[in-house]
Amino acid sequence: MAKDNLTAVLHGIEDLRLEQRPIPEIGDDEVLLAMDSVGICGSDVHYLQHGRIGPFVLTKPMIIGHEAAGVVAKIGKKVTNVKVGDRVAIEPGVPCRYCDHCKQGRYHLCPDIVFCATPPYDGNLTRYYKHAADFCFKLPDHVSMEEGALLEPLSVGVHACRRGGVGLGSKVAILGAGPIGLVTLLTAQSMGASEILITDLVQSRLDVAKELGATHTLLLTKEQSAEDTVKLVTQKMSAQPDVTIDCCGAESSVRLAILATRSGGVVVVVGMGAPEVKLPLINALAREVDIRGIFRYCNDYSAALALVSSGKVNVKRLVTHHFDIKETAKAFETSRHGLGGAIKVMIHVTPRNTNNPVKF
Amino acid sequence: MAKDNLTAVLHGIEDLRLEQRPIPEIGDDEVLLAMDSVGICGSDVHYLQHGRIGPFVLTKPMIIGHEAAGVVAKIGKKVTNVKVGDRVAIEPGVPCRYCDHCKQGRYHLCPDIVFCATPPYDGNLTRYYKHAADFCFKLPDHVSMEEGALLEPLSVGVHACRRGGVGLGSKVAILGAGPIGLVTLLTAQSMGASEILITDLVQSRLDVAKELGATHTLLLTKEQSAEDTVKLVTQKMSAQPDVTIDCCGAESSVRLAILATRSGGVVVVVGMGAPEVKLPLINALAREVDIRGIFRYCNDYSAALALVSSGKVNVKRLVTHHFDIKETAKAFETSRHGLGGAIKVMIHVTPRNTNNPVKF
Amino acid sequence: MAKDNLTAVLHGIEDLRLEQRPIPEIGDDEVLLAMDSVGICGSDVHYLQHGRIGPFVLTKPMIIGHEAAGVVAKIGKKVTNVKVGDRVAIEPGVPCRYCDHCKQGRYHLCPDIVFCATPPYDGNLTRYYKHAADFCFKLPDHVSMEEGALLEPLSVGVHACRRGGVGLGSKVAILGAGPIGLVTLLTAQSMGASEILITDLVQSRLDVAKELGATHTLLLTKEQSAEDTVKLVTQKMSAQPDVTIDCCGAESSVRLAILATRSGGVVVVVGMGAPEVKLPLINALAREVDIRGIFRYCNDYSAALALVSSGKVNVKRLVTHHFDIKETAKAFETSRHGLGGAIKVMIHVTPRNTNNPVKF
Amino acid sequence: MAKDNLTAVLHGIEDLRLEQRPIPEIGDDEVLLAMDSVGICGSDVHYLQHGRIGPFVLTKPMIIGHEAAGVVAKIGKKVTNVKVGDRVAIEPGVPCRYCDHCKQGRYHLCPDIVFCATPPYDGNLTRYYKHAADFCFKLPDHVSMEEGALLEPLSVGVHACRRGGVGLGSKVAILGAGPIGLVTLLTAQSMGASEILITDLVQSRLDVAKELGATHTLLLTKEQSAEDTVKLVTQKMSAQPDVTIDCCGAESSVRLAILATRSGGVVVVVGMGAPEVKLPLINALAREVDIRGIFRYCNDYSAALALVSSGKVNVKRLVTHHFDIKETAKAFETSRHGLGGAIKVMIHVTPRNTNNPVKF
Repeated sequence: MAKDNLTAVLHGIEDLRLEQRPIPEIGDDEVLLAMDSVGICGSDVHYLQHGRIGPFVLTKPMIIGHEAAGVVAKIGKKVTNVKVGDRVAIEPGVPCRYCDHCKQGRYHLCPDIVFCATPPYDGNLTRYYKHAADFCFKLPDHVSMEEGALLEPLSVGVHACRRGGVGLGSKVAILGAGPIGLVTLLTAQSMGASEILITDLVQSRLDVAKELGATHTLLLTKEQSAEDTVKLVTQKMSAQPDVTIDCCGAESSVRLAILATRSGGVVVVVGMGAPEVKLPLINALAREVDIRGIFRYCNDYSAALALVSSGKVNVKRLVTHHFDIKETAKAFETSRHGLGGAIKVMIHVTPRNTNNPVKF
Repeated sequence: MAKDNLTAVLHGIEDLRLEQRPIPEIGDDEVLLAMDSVGICGSDVHYLQHGRIGPFVLTKPMIIGHEAAGVVAKIGKKVTNVKVGDRVAIEPGVPCRYCDHCKQGRYHLCPDIVFCATPPYDGNLTRYYKHAADFCFKLPDHVSMEEGALLEPLSVGVHACRRGGVGLGSKVAILGAGPIGLVTLLTAQSMGASEILITDLVQSRLDVAKELGATHTLLLTKEQSAEDTVKLVTQKMSAQPDVTIDCCGAESSVRLAILATRSGGVVVVVGMGAPEVKLPLINALAREVDIRGIFRYCNDYSAALALVSSGKVNVKRLVTHHFDIKETAKAFETSRHGLGGAIKVMIHVTPRNTNNPVKF
Repeated sequence: MAKDNLTAVLHGIEDLRLEQRPIPEIGDDEVLLAMDSVGICGSDVHYLQHGRIGPFVLTKPMIIGHEAAGVVAKIGKKVTNVKVGDRVAIEPGVPCRYCDHCKQGRYHLCPDIVFCATPPYDGNLTRYYKHAADFCFKLPDHVSMEEGALLEPLSVGVHACRRGGVGLGSKVAILGAGPIGLVTLLTAQSMGASEILITDLVQSRLDVAKELGATHTLLLTKEQSAEDTVKLVTQKMSAQPDVTIDCCGAESSVRLAILATRSGGVVVVVGMGAPEVKLPLINALAREVDIRGIFRYCNDYSAALALVSSGKVNVKRLVTHHFDIKETAKAFETSRHGLGGAIKVMIHVTPRNTNNPVKF
Repeated sequence: MAKDNLTAVLHGIEDLRLEQRPIPEIGDDEVLLAMDSVGICGSDVHYLQHGRIGPFVLTKPMIIGHEAAGVVAKIGKKVTNVKVGDRVAIEPGVPCRYCDHCKQGRYHLCPDIVFCATPPYDGNLTRYYKHAADFCFKLPDHVSMEEGALLEPLSVGVHACRRGGVGLGSKVAILGAGPIGLVTLLTAQSMGASEILITDLVQSRLDVAKELGATHTLLLTKEQSAEDTVKLVTQKMSAQPDVTIDCCGAESSVRLAILATRSGGVVVVVGMGAPEVKLPLINALAREVDIRGIFRYCNDYSAALALVSSGKVNVKRLVTHHFDIKETAKAFETSRHGLGGAIKVMIHVTPRNTNNPVKF
């Protein structure tokens, strides 16, 4: 096996370095993966800029990256679900398997979960990475490696829509047309939502959303009052949404979500905002509008894969920029500043398309 | 208003007559409808042939028909949801609104529900028919009257899939590719099922299912053992289905549904079979495969309308034959014997396309 | 029938008058009730003091009272569920029966619900009152009239616990040991909660809670930080609560509820506080702690009655003071200022115990 | 450590032997348990008599016993939830932790679960037994070892009631007043069921049920038709039950369960009967009465422990006979033939009461 294990390591705020790391040894239930594609997520950029997200603080160098797909290079003795050469998407969190959350099917809440690129755990923007085999999902031939990497954000959309109870005939409002807003849009459509309104402050993002199938778009301005926006939402949808999914996290956005949602409906907040927010909580309470956050995903990867594999959703449209792992700095720069209309920036550890049996 | 109220009245077994009936007077919360399209359902044919279905026995002449759409001709004093001239689909059961079932949101189980063409209540294959206004659903201009009539069987599909918990990434097996099997297929797709296998004894029905989007079809023979069929189902789907929806009702079909479904999954039985059936119940029990029947639908019409109106499903494909109300006898003959590959037979009380702003 | 219909009418802020009103005429699905017992609720006092609660504003004289029980004096033509002489508890809200909320089993969210003593609708602190028969619940002989009146607050507790998903083995924290906190406590016990901690600022209220079966009590001080209180809660319960039910509504109380609840748990907010509150929302979101309000109750009265009737809960302990309707002013004074350790103040329109077959 | 590891081994039909076995070596996440109490279950007796239950066939000698509690004698390196000397109840099935069922919180459906005394896996009627530490539940001082053993059947009751959706105000019918019927009764009470009717063919069993709190008992005869019994059930409960839990498994019992349950209700079948049964399925289907089996339990042990520990249920009453492990043959004889009115027979591996800090 090659000895080159070029790896993107975050050493501290604004200090992301490419360096060699030893190729990991695998356990009996693990696989070694030759990494192929790793997308950049807003949280990766946030760690680069701030060295922390909420309670998770970078205190020692950490490999970055968690939206990823690779090829199985070696398997542990007990592994049966994949074999060497399989192309797999990587669900990046591996829970303890022993606690109540794990046993109750909500393993993402496991306090001991090891999650890629969340301090103190390493991520997978590296040439060789080991992972629990059962959190690897074999890709069919016609699904590309970068689609595999995109299952990560797509799973967030799946989890958000499931938590919101989106279903047949649901009227859904999505606040924010960034990558997460867009995967949420794609998922909501696939679950049978009959109307989907999406909002943003930037028209070009709404154009993409429209192209991907939003039934209504609404350009917001920062000056608009939540009350005025609620009126516009209701007019466009001819009703209040059953479910509103906030993909911004800003206080103003959560406020809008609460006020806009119909009595008995659900607000899902995906975006993470300030530690403290001021809210018209009573408006939600007295109308039994439930407020639910989401934390990553749980048992959502296979549905995300099925969505892509069946052709129901086209996530490829989200990737606007491609870089080699050696260009990691430039890739982060592009993602961070949204250069060139960047939506999703993909880093290729293996040259693009190499591992795709069905070529682009 | 015209005095002609030609009406199809079932007087007894094999005794369906066209006759004039008085135009009904409406109550304050009712509307008078000038009927447009009425589909023939298997249950209509069953009453014609047997004069009863289970506990529902024809003891006096009954107007037939319950899959219907019409145009509002008159509204009661308290009616606000529709106005004269509105084209509407008719949800054919009106519950008491007072019992526990009604208050708990399962009004279809109301023991006092008045349901079209279920003895002793009249149906709506007639020129003028009155109905509770809130069980009429206004059709958008681009939805045709016969699509409005088709919301009735489609609502059965919606109810079946909802009861089965079909969702994103579900693997669904549908047993039977008749009209109900097909609307169930269309619904399951729209709810995000990733794989749908459909079975039938007749290849031509499977061909239609394939055309409508089934991912797998399986031609059954009467000789095949359930165990052998299970193997074929599992092979085709590369897994056992999460949900199996039986649209036949035959003992052999329910047996297959039980054996085929994965542990922890759900069997929904839509078709109604013999009073007593012999089943491998323990197989379902010990694997926690739940068995759920469905009785009509409940709060499903608006989702069915959204499905059609948004273009997500194409129910028009189901209608194979058209007749004028004066040809009712012939229409029933066609439906009863599946003449000319009949799937769904539509009776036009008003000449076809008259009431459609957007013509075929 | 007697002509005396002495009635407590709220004419404006601090203007509650006793006056004669005509005895109402009943409709076909209604009953006339000779009122027996009416409890005073915090909301009644709030209308007296402020003339409004949120969007509900007193603009014309309104009969007060909604926690009530009476005896059937006359029945409408269509009424079958009760007969003259029946002693009944009154569920005080009657919905439209036609809207989507009504059909979907969440009739309490019906925008046209007519609810006693919520402007502009009259309440039932009066000698003769008419009500929809199906919202009257016949009391068994051994259940007293004032227990019937207490089904109203008890139903709030039932609704709160159901919305919170309280079940077998649940660890529940209840914030506030006023009447609603206490009925919530009684309900949670009956649903199988294994540990119930209750908090308050007043020790005497905690003593009552302890007597009623709280497994832990915690006296709070206004100075304590939420973080410190969380530690105490966790210590006492040896774990974080699965469900926290806030019966105060204060910002500090909702904050505590969020921080105290275990990941994946539920916060139910029963108390209604300020229009805007500042909250550590992200703490709830990132741990998937759901926030749910409650609005009155829905399909909860029969469970509340079953609780009382089966002897599972003893609501009588909540009533600390009794007054005749002629002493209404004094009764409100007692309730308003908590005079004499008042928990629940009961007004007797008919002399106490008159209508109870099983006497105290 | 003592070398004596006397063990009850089933070698074949009617061939249960006491013999010495080696004391097991533990893994890092396991504990070694000095066994204290082991109850005899119907399935143990069934293996003794028939050598198999359904697909589970005894093909080699197997240690019997799975309703058990013991004292921790040694812990693996990674074990943190218990320590040497802890008294624990043993949840007898340990799943793979890797499959979809495990990840989705339904680990009891894991195809690779290792379950005590289900061929080919050994049980724990032995002096020293090893088990996964996280499936051991520490008993508080006031809970006795035999109550710990009884958590196993109690968990079946918990699982059955949860699957049935028993809740506040539920009307529940339980068919069969054997040990499982009785634990189901105790659980249903604790979950807030307002009325519980229990049936049996033997009056003495109904007497115990009455003593444990059944609100109605109904003595059945084999000759009675299901239809007649339904009438009696409905009369006694003044309504049809919302949930019927069949703890017999006989065809006649499942038939009764279906016919007796109210429309929209649930039938839970706990008892396991013949491979094929003849049923009035259409009666259930057309009234949306769901049929659900149960397979053991899942995430139910801690609720069962909370029930016992809080004093809400008294399971001790179920134990009618006590034997030393050396008397295993006699113990099985007693259980098998219900000698001396046997309900639950307890085998003591350690002399009774030795390990109870709070003595009987």
